[in-house]
Formats: sequence, C-alpha cells, structure tokens
Amino acid sequence: MGKQSHKSDFVFQSITLIGIGLIGSSIARAVKKRNDLVQTVTLTDVNAEVRQKAKEIGLGDHVLDDVTVAVKDADCVILCTPIGNYAEIMQNISNHLKSGCIVSDVGSVKRAPIADMSPHIPDGVHLVPGHPIAGTEKSGPESGFAELFEGRYWLLTPGHETAPNATQRMRNLFEGIGAMVEEMDPNYHDKVLAITSHLPHLIAYTIVGTADDLEDQTQADVIRFSASGFRDFTRIAGSNPIMWRDIFLNNREAVLEMLQRFSEDLTALQRAIRWGESQTLEDLFTRTREIRRSVIDAKQEIPPSPDKAR
Amino acid sequence: MGKQSHKSDFVFQSITLIGIGLIGSSIARAVKKRNDLVQTVTLTDVNAEVRQKAKEIGLGDHVLDDVTVAVKDADCVILCTPIGNYAEIMQNISNHLKSGCIVSDVGSVKRAPIADMSPHIPDGVHLVPGHPIAGTEKSGPESGFAELFEGRYWLLTPGHETAPNATQRMRNLFEGIGAMVEEMDPNYHDKVLAITSHLPHLIAYTIVGTADDLEDQTQADVIRFSASGFRDFTRIAGSNPIMWRDIFLNNREAVLEMLQRFSEDLTALQRAIRWGESQTLEDLFTRTREIRRSVIDAKQEIPPSPDKAR
Repeated sequence: MGKQSHKSDFVFQSITLIGIGLIGSSIARAVKKRNDLVQTVTLTDVNAEVRQKAKEIGLGDHVLDDVTVAVKDADCVILCTPIGNYAEIMQNISNHLKSGCIVSDVGSVKRAPIADMSPHIPDGVHLVPGHPIAGTEKSGPESGFAELFEGRYWLLTPGHETAPNATQRMRNLFEGIGAMVEEMDPNYHDKVLAITSHLPHLIAYTIVGTADDLEDQTQADVIRFSASGFRDFTRIAGSNPIMWRDIFLNNREAVLEMLQRFSEDLTALQRAIRWGESQTLEDLFTRTREIRRSVIDAKQEIPPSPDKAR
Repeated sequence: MGKQSHKSDFVFQSITLIGIGLIGSSIARAVKKRNDLVQTVTLTDVNAEVRQKAKEIGLGDHVLDDVTVAVKDADCVILCTPIGNYAEIMQNISNHLKSGCIVSDVGSVKRAPIADMSPHIPDGVHLVPGHPIAGTEKSGPESGFAELFEGRYWLLTPGHETAPNATQRMRNLFEGIGAMVEEMDPNYHDKVLAITSHLPHLIAYTIVGTADDLEDQTQADVIRFSASGFRDFTRIAGSNPIMWRDIFLNNREAVLEMLQRFSEDLTALQRAIRWGESQTLEDLFTRTREIRRSVIDAKQEIPPSPDKAR
C-alpha cells in the first residue's frame, strides 16, 4: 500500500471468478475468510440476478457485469461455470488477459474442456486446469460456504508445457483454503471421475426419473415413504441440470465405457435374483462392504456440511 | 406390582424381540427410554456373541439363549431377523406362544414373509406384520439408538382376518416410540419399497462391485477420490449382506419389474449421451429436481442420526 517495492505475501494480488454458483461463491468466501491469500477478489456472472444476489450477500470485493473488464487486472482467472460455456468465455476474455495471468477452472471433466480452453490461451498466459472434489447438490451464490474445500482433494491437470511455477501458485492458493492438492493426467482424471461421480449421478437421475413415471398414487407414496436409498438418490438427482448435462456430453467415452461395465454387472445380478442364486448375492454384498470400509479408512467419508444437514 | 387387580397403562406387559441387530436393539432402547409402554423387554438371538454384547450394553430386561423360553410369557413377539429365517423361527416358537399374543416383524418385504409366518400362527394368536422405514447401514446390537424411529413411518400390513384391536395395540406401541403408523396392503407395500429402497440398494451394490473390478491403481484412486455420488453408494452398499440377500430373494417379482423399467430408462439415457441429445438430458435432470423438492416437502429428508454423522 503506497510502498510499491514492498513484496507482499499474497499468492495473488487479484483473482477473478467467472460464474458465481456453489463453487465460485465458496472460493470467494474461503479466500476472503483468510485475508493473506489474495488482495482483491472480483466476481462476474452472465446472469444479472445472480450478480445482484452476490452483491447483496457481499461476496468478494467487486461484482462486475462485463467479463472482459472483470479479468483485465487479474493475476488469476478461475472459470466456475458449466463446462459447456468455456469455449465462448475464453473467446471473449482471451484478448483481455494480463501477461503472466494464470487461467484455471473447476470443471468435473478435464480432457474436452482443456481442448476448448487451450486454443484461446495467449502467449505469456498459463493454463492450470483444476477440479475440487467437493460440492453439495445445491446451486447458486447463496449455497456456497467457506469451509467447502477443507480436507477435500483438489486435482490439478497441468499440461507438459505448463510452467511449474504457475502450477505451484495454484497449489498454494487451494492449499491455503484447506484443500489437499494432487496432480493428475486429464484422461486418467476423467476415467476415475466417470466411475466415482458421473455414473452415480447418471444412475440417480435415471431411477428418480423411473419413479416419476409410475402411476400417480404409487408415485405419491414413493415420495411419502422414500426410504434411505431413494432419498439419497433424489439428493444426488437434485444437482444442477445444466452442469450435469455438460459433464455427460463432455465425458462421453469414459461414461459410456463405465456404463457398459455397470450394465453387464447389473444384468448378472438380475439373473442371480431371477434364479434365486443366494450365494452370488451374498458374495457381492460382502465384497462391497469391504469397499465401504476402504472409503471410510481413506477418510473420504466426512460429516455433512452445515448446509447439507438441514 | 403386588396389586394384581391394578389395571396398568402399559401397552404390553411383556414383549420379546427375536434378533438383536440395528432394529431389534433400537426397539429395545426406544421402549426402555419410555418406561410407560412395556413392563418387560426380553431379547434373544441365535448368535452367542450378539447375546453377550447385548448383555454387556444392558439392552432390555433379559437376554435369553432359548427362543422358546424367551417367547413363552410374551404378549407381543417381534421378529427382527433377516426375513429368510422367519419360517424356521415360527416353526420353533409356534407351540410356545401365549394365547392372545401378537406376532409382528420388521422386514422390508411383506408378501412372501407373511406367507412364511401365517401357517405357524396358532388359533388365538394375532399376526400384525410391520416395517419401520428407518435404518442406517450399520449392523449389530451396538449400532442401534432409541431415536431411530422418531418421525419415521412404520407401515403395518394386517390381513382381513386380523383383529382390529391387535393392530391398534401395535400402533400404540410404535407411535409410543415416535413413529408415524400407516396401514397398507402387503403387495402394494412390496411394490413401493421395490423402487424406494430395494432397487437403489441393488444398484448401489452393483456400481460398487463394478468399481471393485477395475485395475488396481484405478481402484485405489476411486477409493481415494471417491466423490459425492460414489461415496453415498458405498454407504448404501455397506448394509447387512444377509438381510439384503433375503430381501431380493423374497421380493423377486417387484424388484425385477422395477429393474426392467429402470434398465429401459438407462438405455434411453445412454443413447442420449452417445448421440449428444443435450435437450433430453436437460429435461430429465430438470424433472428429477422437482422430485427432490417433493421429497424435501414430504419431510422425508431428515438430518443424519448422531450415529451417522461421524
């Protein structure tokens, strides 16, 4: 402040978040909660109502209408929109990015979105794609919270050409807000996420849709008596429709491959039920219990966020 | 006490719970927490270790080895074992039931288990089958808690021949421990539960099994980075293997019918992803979000139990 030569300890002087949903608003909250990571947090969103809401709840330092203005002074720009919008956003902001700026994102798919972003990264600007393994089924600026990333993985998928220093700065930022940062190949990322996240969401959407097609009385009772199982599935299937549409369209190959394996396994189980093969059922159900224990041991079973426990 | 002519307000003088797992131990805890519902709670289990554990944690008033001794003074006997054991248990206890005794159960399927129990109900004994829509993925006597049934539905499926007074007494007992009691036709029960509970469990078991078949490194990373979605599925797939084997074998027709509908819907969605039909995906995902809202409005989304929020 006034002393231009003073070397600040901020990871970034200025970051800009494009898209003010659950993740964007949570990053803004988390960064501002720790005031030593970033000096200025700017937010922008194409939706005027969302910008208004962000201003009302006081997210970041500035909420701007024009994305090209929002990015022009940023040392770091993070795309927090559905991945289907990346190409258009990058086209719009490409000529307005500062030299040395780092562009990142939070998308649940990496290979196809990287292909959308890369052609629009100017010389002197760095691309460090990322994906926080964190979220709830809620959407919108008011759904975020500062603690969302604490103890959760944040996967970075830099390319061979990415400057190691750029990756390191993103690591510092995300570790600063509590995440555990890991680097990963984008194709491998998409394969792992296809089974841990994309296929479960696809199945949850399907079964909730199947229930919705039942005759009226049954449907009413399905909702009324929704037991554990279906209730969990409705929560998953309550996630942002546009975001998830884009995920499936952008991770098509990996999702279809995992879906094929799943369908074969389901058919085998269907046959076991039809023919009363009790040992087959018992063996599978015992085996899956071990996986559950592994997940608990891996500490990926965390208490629900305050936001979820309503 | 001593005054035999004193008319007590207890719903039952003596109840016996056969099977000391999550549900049996929770009933025992809930009933003893309110000391005006039942005078004496007796528990029994085929497994000596389970009986020992029940004694250690002080469940009920008596923990007995011999099921025939355990039931002989009971006004009410509730089967809390996997449903595959009902026929054998009923054969064993049939001649030892007191006249006027009410037999109930807590099984997640009703039609087939009723067919197993009915032939062994002596004259003067009443059958009032039941199913609490409550539970966690935990098993065993130490996993139960007194609040498990508070605000949850308890479905009763009495037959036409069941004395209304017997159904009323079971209602009084279960409402006494906080449940909302509803009567329902057993076949309809099995159809509703097939979609709300049995199919979701089948799918969760399948996908966790599919993940278990991946090559070692991928499997390790699936567990490590298990995102929301898969993590929820592992929880569901961590449920008691024997209990769930019996559920699928005993609700075969309804589960296979719902599975057929689900498979058709999943195939349609698979095709939409393969051909990039974005509107189809968006429409379904928007529709399922409405169902989620209905479930929340129906107040079936409750905060996790203390036991689950670890």
